[in-house]
Amino acid sequence: MSQIFSYPHLREFTQEVFKRMGCSDEHAATASEVLLSADLRGIDSHGVARLIGYVRLWENGRVNATPNIRVVHETPSTAVVDGDRGLGLVVAPYAMEVAIAKAANVGSGWVSVKNSNHFGIAGQHAMMALDKDMIGMAMTNASPLVAPTFATERMLGTNPIAVAIPAKTQPAFVADFATTTAANGKLEILQRKSQEAPTGWIQDKEGHSSTNPHELKDGGALLPLGGDREHGSHKGYCLGAIVDIFSAVLSGANYGPWAPPFVSFLPLAPDPVGEGLGHFLGAMRVDAFRPADEFKEHMDKWITRFRNATPVAGEQVLIPGDPEREMESHRRQGGIPLLDPVVKDLREVGEKFKLSF
Amino acid sequence: MSQIFSYPHLREFTQEVFKRMGCSDEHAATASEVLLSADLRGIDSHGVARLIGYVRLWENGRVNATPNIRVVHETPSTAVVDGDRGLGLVVAPYAMEVAIAKAANVGSGWVSVKNSNHFGIAGQHAMMALDKDMIGMAMTNASPLVAPTFATERMLGTNPIAVAIPAKTQPAFVADFATTTAANGKLEILQRKSQEAPTGWIQDKEGHSSTNPHELKDGGALLPLGGDREHGSHKGYCLGAIVDIFSAVLSGANYGPWAPPFVSFLPLAPDPVGEGLGHFLGAMRVDAFRPADEFKEHMDKWITRFRNATPVAGEQVLIPGDPEREMESHRRQGGIPLLDPVVKDLREVGEKFKLSF
Repeated sequence: MSQIFSYPHLREFTQEVFKRMGCSDEHAATASEVLLSADLRGIDSHGVARLIGYVRLWENGRVNATPNIRVVHETPSTAVVDGDRGLGLVVAPYAMEVAIAKAANVGSGWVSVKNSNHFGIAGQHAMMALDKDMIGMAMTNASPLVAPTFATERMLGTNPIAVAIPAKTQPAFVADFATTTAANGKLEILQRKSQEAPTGWIQDKEGHSSTNPHELKDGGALLPLGGDREHGSHKGYCLGAIVDIFSAVLSGANYGPWAPPFVSFLPLAPDPVGEGLGHFLGAMRVDAFRPADEFKEHMDKWITRFRNATPVAGEQVLIPGDPEREMESHRRQGGIPLLDPVVKDLREVGEKFKLSF
Repeated sequence: MSQIFSYPHLREFTQEVFKRMGCSDEHAATASEVLLSADLRGIDSHGVARLIGYVRLWENGRVNATPNIRVVHETPSTAVVDGDRGLGLVVAPYAMEVAIAKAANVGSGWVSVKNSNHFGIAGQHAMMALDKDMIGMAMTNASPLVAPTFATERMLGTNPIAVAIPAKTQPAFVADFATTTAANGKLEILQRKSQEAPTGWIQDKEGHSSTNPHELKDGGALLPLGGDREHGSHKGYCLGAIVDIFSAVLSGANYGPWAPPFVSFLPLAPDPVGEGLGHFLGAMRVDAFRPADEFKEHMDKWITRFRNATPVAGEQVLIPGDPEREMESHRRQGGIPLLDPVVKDLREVGEKFKLSF
């Protein structure tokens, strides 16, 4: 069962929670905007459902509410940002602003981030570039849950990639996807409903294909996009590895199995190879390649042509970002449904900070 | 059946063919090196097997053997290169040199290319960055053979992505993969052997899953990485779309279904939306993020840790680039096997130019 809450209500509550954790007004506003963007866009696993997780990380001393986020290394088109153990929800927007400023100066900007925490949905950060007529990119490493092709060991996170590309009269192209067959959030939904997972999503602890959504509790793993070798899982593994290296080896964060888990009850890996979690943010000015209007007119044409591609009977060809944009428009008006366990968690958070929810 | 030829023999023959097409000595040397790198690395579909295809494109006036390849738009970290209808085999290395020079100056360099032709294997171009302690990236759009999720129409190419990352004592990480479940070359092998394809590789003209490797001749299509919606094909579609937009919309090449086909017997799409085929090349100096030695030591650690991940019984966890590097070492010594139809094609090319093969 679920209840519906308005966006302003959830936004205000979340912002107040971040303030009571000690965040500045500015950080609390940014963090709540980024977190809630997931709920608005229908990525329910990454929104307020995770607020209690961030609070617990803060309680365990893994999140610094008053971080000194700063550039520690740079060239005209690149930088490394040290997040000072801050919320990824504020560290990533800071880093994206650095990327955007560099793109404004020299055409493109690329920022690798260390010492951060989970940053919400990648797409939200990538989209910061759009109104500057820039292409935005965002990726992050994450809790190790994914076995590379031919491995039984969990070595990578679901390591998402987001790319946002502006158009002229059409809505922007916004791709945002985990580099696994299915995001962990989709598995959580099956767990709650006790439904079987499709083959190709998970394997058991010995590396056999499994449809048991609870397999991860018993040593199983999520599978890279592709599922198995015959269906290209080595490509999903490549993608997850590239995200890991760009986010964490370039910056000096923890990579691979050393990436810190999001849930506070799991211990950090011993002998860390870096600091915190890593992200990678990028921005390219479209007029660094061709006049912006010309580019955006062709993006309109690209989008229109693909949307009108001959569909399979009864289906419709979508442009990346279509479902999330429709969901946002729907939920801004009609509110955001939260499952009962999420409501319970938020009430618990409220009590902790003497806030009513 | 197949015959074995030495690398120097194939290299010399190919170089001579390009010279007789009118290429300069320098272009013929580069083009033959790039083309043969596919045979050395075991990507047989993209090597000398395609020489006759390039020759036919040249005969049809679609390839300019003496192109004036040049930068037509730039910022400190970006450029657009006009390939002047040259062989992608020489246009892409030119563009990659531009990207590398920009990375040397301002930390990173990103070059979108228009008016080009097929460029061989993406990995070869990305690897140009390695000995400069840079990360290299290469992608290209290609003949439309792939249906987006929920479409029956072929809108995208197999649009590969390559990323090459240097290490210190370990061999480099080199990912190079089509954004489809299976590359077209793998399908061609099944066609030759009249073997069924696994599900998830192709669909028939109505969008139903098919295992018939000849389905493309009857209006079918290759499928994006993931295969179907339930297994994440929308992510493969996103990847193919991003490659298409970075390669062709940024540069002013033909995108989507307008991308020129590699085979000369297929007509160009009417009402082109740009010039020729597009590529996207990138380079990032690793010391634009952290000291190069530090980065490369951590890459060694990344590679070693992943290679030693607990394997599925009887298997071994690979690092991207392992199989191709082993194949290259094997074939440089033991020669390159060519299937009889390929040998026949090369003899035909030889006769055309009065060269013995």
